[in-house]
Amino acid sequence: MGKKHMSSQFDTELQAIRVRLLEMGGKVELMIANSIKSLVDRDSAGAERVIVSDAEVNAMEMEIDQMCLLILARRQPTARDLRFVTLALKIVTDLERIGDQCASIAEHALELNREAQLKPYIDLPRIAEAATNAVKEALDAFVRGDAETAARVCREDRIVDELNEQLQRELLTFMMEDAATIERALRITSISKFLERIADHATNIAEMVIFMVDGRDIRHSLV
Amino acid sequence: MGKKHMSSQFDTELQAIRVRLLEMGGKVELMIANSIKSLVDRDSAGAERVIVSDAEVNAMEMEIDQMCLLILARRQPTARDLRFVTLALKIVTDLERIGDQCASIAEHALELNREAQLKPYIDLPRIAEAATNAVKEALDAFVRGDAETAARVCREDRIVDELNEQLQRELLTFMMEDAATIERALRITSISKFLERIADHATNIAEMVIFMVDGRDIRHSLV
Repeated sequence: MGKKHMSSQFDTELQAIRVRLLEMGGKVELMIANSIKSLVDRDSAGAERVIVSDAEVNAMEMEIDQMCLLILARRQPTARDLRFVTLALKIVTDLERIGDQCASIAEHALELNREAQLKPYIDLPRIAEAATNAVKEALDAFVRGDAETAARVCREDRIVDELNEQLQRELLTFMMEDAATIERALRITSISKFLERIADHATNIAEMVIFMVDGRDIRHSLV
Repeated sequence: MGKKHMSSQFDTELQAIRVRLLEMGGKVELMIANSIKSLVDRDSAGAERVIVSDAEVNAMEMEIDQMCLLILARRQPTARDLRFVTLALKIVTDLERIGDQCASIAEHALELNREAQLKPYIDLPRIAEAATNAVKEALDAFVRGDAETAARVCREDRIVDELNEQLQRELLTFMMEDAATIERALRITSISKFLERIADHATNIAEMVIFMVDGRDIRHSLV
């Protein structure tokens, strides 16, 4: 098995990954909130800022990837530390894709802001909040190695799914009643689906955390 | 840097990952084709088989993950081999998600097969073929360490995007003209978007391959 007790320098490096991952998480959580805010407030400059900030998230992915590769090459971690580093590698990819999805939401917001508002945006902020929470809790679970919180994230994914379905049904009614609403309703539908995908990423992260902590793989047995 | 020249046992283990990844790729490529075929042929039993086969893809993800972890723990690869193994870890996640998306396509096919066909499915098989090719070429590029093929996959992603947009516009016309088509058109739209996401996964894989081969990161500079 090799070095069970690692140097404190090694601990510092692991801690640096934890900190940086949380910072990246904080950034994408803000992107989720701001992308929806740019729609609700009809703030297209805000939407543009979300799109621009995606580049920072991309840069953080590459940076954390590099930190993980260096630690694997130099420290050759085993057992639990190895699982931590390899999961960090996977998790940054999920976070980076969440950033992409926020940019896509912001692009749809730009389009929607150019037209009359179809309906008050009450559900989207609620879905966004649930998705943001899921991301936050999944990451907290990861850095703390907390399988219980991770399991809760998995269970609560259906809340986002249900809110999303409810909104889709409402939008469908709009479209059926008035063809003039279809294009806008489709854009809102897309935004809602992006939020659902973001929550799915959080669930994916949470499933991997449970695997890391318990050493057993519950991905694919839940749901 | 440590062991530059690895044992032939180590080479065998790397080769096993390559082979298994290609097998997993072959399985998801078949799932893409079969999910669309189940729609075109109105073959709901076929759609059910796609949904069931998702479990096999999930199992392969866990197996390949395990192979990668073992190789990291026991062989402590460095440099290019390390990048290969860590990318394999990321790529299986993309493949697993493609499997999920095929299962989602099959679920939509089940719904659509229950109703009258809205229009001949001519575009979807074409988009599916382009997406399947992208997945296949991205994986080939990975196992061969072929950055040129990977770059082509990145460039050709816009073909899928354009085909997808074209279909979305056509479906929009249907919906605007006849509200009775909306629900079916929305399902077809979803399928088309799942195919677009599958091609995006292939692009993600291809970008990572270019990084592995060139040692530079072109993710986020392309597109």
